[in-house]
This record gives sequence, C-alpha cells and structure tokens, in this order.
Amino acid sequence: MNAEIIAVGSELLLGQIANTNAQFISQKLAEAGIDVYRHSVVGDNQSRLLAEISAAQDRAELIILTGGLGPTKDDLTKETVAQFLGKKLVMHDESLHFIEQYFKNANKAMTANNQKQALIVEGSDVLVNHHGMAPGMILNSQGTILVLLPGPPREMKPMLQTSVIPRLLKLRKGEPVISRVLRYFGIGEAELEDRIEHLIHKQINPTIAPLASDGEVTLRISAKHSEVKTAQKMLDVTEADINSIVGKYMYGKNDETLLQKTFELLSSSQLTIASAESLTAGLFASQIGSQPGASSVLKGGLVCYTNEAKMNLAGVSDKTLAEEGAVSKRCAIELAEGVKNRLGSDIGISFTGSAGPESLEGQPLGTVWIGIAFQSNPPIALHIKLQGERNYIRLKAVKHGLFHLIQLLEQHSDKIVE
Amino acid sequence: MNAEIIAVGSELLLGQIANTNAQFISQKLAEAGIDVYRHSVVGDNQSRLLAEISAAQDRAELIILTGGLGPTKDDLTKETVAQFLGKKLVMHDESLHFIEQYFKNANKAMTANNQKQALIVEGSDVLVNHHGMAPGMILNSQGTILVLLPGPPREMKPMLQTSVIPRLLKLRKGEPVISRVLRYFGIGEAELEDRIEHLIHKQINPTIAPLASDGEVTLRISAKHSEVKTAQKMLDVTEADINSIVGKYMYGKNDETLLQKTFELLSSSQLTIASAESLTAGLFASQIGSQPGASSVLKGGLVCYTNEAKMNLAGVSDKTLAEEGAVSKRCAIELAEGVKNRLGSDIGISFTGSAGPESLEGQPLGTVWIGIAFQSNPPIALHIKLQGERNYIRLKAVKHGLFHLIQLLEQHSDKIVE
Repeated sequence: MNAEIIAVGSELLLGQIANTNAQFISQKLAEAGIDVYRHSVVGDNQSRLLAEISAAQDRAELIILTGGLGPTKDDLTKETVAQFLGKKLVMHDESLHFIEQYFKNANKAMTANNQKQALIVEGSDVLVNHHGMAPGMILNSQGTILVLLPGPPREMKPMLQTSVIPRLLKLRKGEPVISRVLRYFGIGEAELEDRIEHLIHKQINPTIAPLASDGEVTLRISAKHSEVKTAQKMLDVTEADINSIVGKYMYGKNDETLLQKTFELLSSSQLTIASAESLTAGLFASQIGSQPGASSVLKGGLVCYTNEAKMNLAGVSDKTLAEEGAVSKRCAIELAEGVKNRLGSDIGISFTGSAGPESLEGQPLGTVWIGIAFQSNPPIALHIKLQGERNYIRLKAVKHGLFHLIQLLEQHSDKIVE
Repeated sequence: MNAEIIAVGSELLLGQIANTNAQFISQKLAEAGIDVYRHSVVGDNQSRLLAEISAAQDRAELIILTGGLGPTKDDLTKETVAQFLGKKLVMHDESLHFIEQYFKNANKAMTANNQKQALIVEGSDVLVNHHGMAPGMILNSQGTILVLLPGPPREMKPMLQTSVIPRLLKLRKGEPVISRVLRYFGIGEAELEDRIEHLIHKQINPTIAPLASDGEVTLRISAKHSEVKTAQKMLDVTEADINSIVGKYMYGKNDETLLQKTFELLSSSQLTIASAESLTAGLFASQIGSQPGASSVLKGGLVCYTNEAKMNLAGVSDKTLAEEGAVSKRCAIELAEGVKNRLGSDIGISFTGSAGPESLEGQPLGTVWIGIAFQSNPPIALHIKLQGERNYIRLKAVKHGLFHLIQLLEQHSDKIVE
C-alpha cells in the first residue's frame, strides 16, 4: 500500500508551526509496512486543497489528511472532501451530544460555530475523538482510502494509533513486515553504528535502521515473512546478534521509554521514591508525576535551587557547601539521603550541576552529579559531563538518572527472585 | 510573488525527521512578503521529484528546493533539475577548490564522491556554502525562479538569509507585509472568533488569522503597505479594535510565551517565587528553572504528592485535610502560604487537583485549585475545571497559574509606578 499525507492549514505555510503531524504519521505508517511517497501542505483554501486531493487520488492508495476540522470558517477540509466526492455533510448526533456535554461540563456557553464540528461527510466511518471535539472520518474514493484527522497532535495521535492503524493493518496486502524497536542509552549513534557495522552491512531481511533522537538511540529491526511467528524468530536472532555487542546499553523495546520502564520497575517492586533537585528544578519529580498511578510511587520532592534550600529542606551541611560546593559528589549524596529520610521513601535521588548560561562555582558547564540513596545500601553518586544548551542538559541529566535507576532496580528484583 | 517549497529526502517520508526547513523558509518568506502556497516532500526518487518540480513550475513564481545536494548516490536534486531544464552539470572550480581545502584542513583523505558536490547546473547563479560543502544554486525556468539549497539546517539557514532573501527582495513586486502575533489565554478559539467575527468579516488589509495550540489562542494580524511605519500604524488600530473586545485575555505578543512573560515580570520586579505542587508534581518549578537566570527568581519548591508531604513539608493542617480534603480552596491556600514562609520567597504558588485516571476524594476529574500568596496581601485561590487527559490537565493548570501571576505582577508594577 502506498500513501500520501496532506496537512491543511495556513499556519503551516506561514511557518508558525512545523508539520510534526506528517512526521508522526510517517513513523506509524512505516511501522505498519505502508510506504509513504509524498507529504504536502496546503493552506485554508478550498480550490488548492481540492486540486491536491484530486492529484493525490490519482497516485495513492491511501490519503491521510490532517487539520481543518475545527469550528472556524477557515476550517474546510471536510467541506472540500465532501465536494470532491459529491457528498453532503450531515450532522453526527453522537458527536454533537459529546460536544454539548463538553461545554456543559466546562460550565461554558456553547457558541453556534461549535456545532459545525459535529458535521461529517455522508457515509463516513466515524472515528471518535477522545481528546477534543472534532471527530475523524474514513472514506473510500474509487479504491483510495481517505482518512480525515484533526490537526492538534494530542487529538490526532491517539486517533491514528487506536483507530486508524489497526484498520489499515487489516487492509494491507503483501507479506507482513514485523518490526521491533530496540532502545539504547549512553552510547552515541555513530559509535553504535560503528560497532555493529558488519551486521548492518549484511542486512537484507531482517533490516536494521538506526535513529538518534533526544539523546537516545534506537535500532528498528524489521523482518518480512508470511508467518508472523517465523518473522518474530528472525528478529530474536538479529536482536541477540546486536546485543552480544552493545547489549549493556539497551534498556527497553518498542514504545517503552526510560521513564515508563523506571516507573514500571518501581511499581512492580512496590518501592517509593523522592527527589531533591537543584539543576533540574522539579523536572524529575514532574516526569514521575506524569505517569498514571504516580501516587503509589512518588512520595514527593524538594526543589533546592538555592544553597539555603539545600540546607533547610534537605539537610545538606554548610560544611559540604563551603568546602566542596553545591556541584559536588558530597552534596549530591547528602541531597539524596536527605530527601529519602525527610520523605520516608525507599529511594532518594538528587540532581545538582551547572547547566548554564553562567558557570557555577567555576565548574565547567555541563558538569552534573546525580546522587542515589537506595534503602540501606551505601549511597552512590554519578558524575556526568554533558554538552548542549541549558534545557538539553537538564533533560539529559534526568535521563541519566532514570537509566541508572533502571539498572539498580533490575539488580534489586533479580536479587529478590534469587 | 507566490512560492512553493519542495523538500527532498526519504528520511522525511520515514518520519525520522520533521520538515523544519519548510517552517523556517516559510517564516522568512512571510517576513519578506512572499506568499507560500504549498509545501511538499518527496523521497530520493528521480521520477517523483521530476513530476513535483514540473507541477510546481506551472503554479509558482518561486520554487525553493532543499536537500539532495550531498555526495551520495541518493542525492539527486541537481541531477533532476538539470534534466528538467535540459541542461548539463558542470564542475564549479571554486567550490571544488573549497572542498579540497576543507579536507586538507581537517587532515582527512577526500573520497571521490565528494567531488560530486562541486557540480552545478550549467548557468546557475552559485550560492557559496559557508557551513558545509555543497553550494546552492539559483536558476530561471520560463519565468519561475528555482532555488536549490542544501538540506542540513545549519547550512541552509544562513544561505537563505544572507544570499537568497536579499535577491528575492529585489525581485519582489508589490508591497511588504508586516505581521504581529497577539497571544491570548483563558478563551477558546471558537469563542474568540465569535466575539470578533465582525472584525474578521470585514478584514482585507490588515488581515486577522486565528490559531489555537496547546490551550492558547493567537491572532496573527498582517498589514500591507509601501511604508513600514504606516503598516505598523494600521496594525496598532486593528490590535486596539480587537482588544477593546477581548483585551482582558491577551497576555503577550509575537514570540513571548506565558512562561517567558511571567519570568520577565518576576525578574524586572526583583520578586522571588516558590511552589508547592501536588497535581503538577514539580512541573511549575521545572518550567521556571528552564529559564536562563532562574536562580535569581526561583527560591525552590516542594512536591507534596502525599497528604503526609503536604503536612510535613508545607505545614498544611490535618484539620484542613480531614475536613476539606487535599483538593480544596483551604488546602491550596495553606500550601501557597506554607511554601512562601518555608522558603522565604515573595510569592508562594500551589497546585492541587485531580488529573486522573482515578478521581480523588470524589472530586470530578479535572478539578484544580491554584493558591497564590503574594507578599503580605491576603492569599487567593482560583478554582478551575479542566478536561482532557492527565498530562494535558497538569500542563494547562501550570498555564493558568502563569496567566494569573502575569495579571498580579502587572498590577503590582502598575502600583509601583504610581
């Protein structure tokens, strides 16, 4: 199956936002073994959109449109698709009821233009929007599948993943491609690629595709076989080959993030955590707090931005601050132990460092200390040196903390199993 | 002048990267008063690229191509453009010399495929690449200007700004367009548009374009006039007209975010802040901490995820928790006052609420209380009801806190000025 993605919205043509929707959809279609041949962006202009859809239909078996389903006069994707197909727009009662309910719950008056969001192209397969008001649609046009999705990524992404991809997988012809993503941390893309170069070189089936993003590296391995089980076994062999070389850097698979993996391990071990954060100023705690069910894991945290707060909140000694400074092994350990004791958690973790723009206490920019106090074990501290701008350093520091926690938690649960 | 942007590269179609080049180029063209009508992305495939260029030439006066100028076999943009124009590729001695010098300086052997980067389409106006090896090109095809730029953003951006835009400004007919972005919070896109519908309806020059993203709404207003000063005055009038109706929701202009605006106001007023966060678990403090120079503003914070932490860290009374619960006005106020006193800051802000998936203390999901204790003023608490998934609620709660802080801080500095 070959696909084209059309994004609709003048804000894209003005450069106000990047077309990240096309990127996300392309990734998910690639995972489903569907080839994307073109992206395009057109503004909120009916005649240009009509020309775009018409040309795409001549080439593609699947067209995914994003954007232009909202309440305003500018939003005209479904109007244009209806015109293209010679169909009417009809009210979708279920969606209308949902929108009315939304305004009722928010205690706000519903303006008339919001009703427009419940209109669908006649004969559509309607996709419920769990994160916004405008429903999605699937239609068929002379053998081409047309999918209409809302523009806001937080509405589009879940709709694509839960409603669209499963339907496309059923329609796809040819041998299935089974993919698996292997996730690595603490090794650069170039080094990873260099170390498994002989495996990449001989790849045909399974294929191996490296990709770096946000300080992590992933390898996507994909196998083609008529039997899914056989494809899975082929992937197992490739994975084992790769990890005989770089296995110690792998922390998870597929959609599993460093954060989710840490959270699952904490949850399943019934361990609680608390953080004392200087450099990261709450970023670690906030990430743990982003996980549903966080209250059973996160006892709380201290944002110790000033030396005063490090002493008063976490009990760091003035001697440590005077003699070793805030960016030091000793301070990281006292912060981790302090917050663990203060909040009565099983684990205390701390982040202190210099993220710039000014350097701190004469430490080079990017110097970070992470302290971990794990139950009654001797506390440990990691020293890392990072490069990049302020918020990249803060984010990367949290990732290092999570990666190290994963290793400690895995050792911990291994011990319990023994 | 109307333009189309064609990006070339299979990595875009696989979703490995987003087409941020198109966003950047669009911004710069909009600033230059050139209308962009389409973006497209095609892979490293000669026939599809040829079809794309041919179709674009029929529509556009300017085509900007990015990517595909590199040394590998996949790179075939200039080969395709040469074929399209019926021209040859010829060696550009100056570029070849530059590439040879590059390898000499880097003490590396120059592989043969790097020579390919110095080939240009016969008759091109060559654009020197100061940040990489492949030169850019400008060509003319039956009245359409073709611009070829390298794909890596750090090569493309300076070449666009220093070599391409100045040439286009000379060629451009018509008047410059001056734009301004007005930023609103606390009002939905539909309601905003509804309330200023009569202004949008009569718009010709200046134009008004609404856009919603991440719970905020912006209006881009754009005026066309041969005199920049006059265009600015036209925008002033339109801005005043709009804000006579919805001015109370506006918090900033152009690139200014809620966070930056809050941070600037805190900084310029020399006020410090500290946070006590339940629902948001450090997200507020972390955002303040993301700003360069945060240490002069952020005293620290408490992540009070459990009731125990609310009592022990922030001094919330057990009576409040027992009688009113953690998601209550009283608790929000005690948290804000507690953290302000505990950390000795000018302002204490708190976030408590129910973000799901389970409801808390029988409170409906999305119930949020924000407490603000501002110096010796009586503390206040905001009650907001949010909808959406867990992390959208947490993010939106922080934005509400920032928006309210902006209002208080502006009142505060008005008082000082009086």
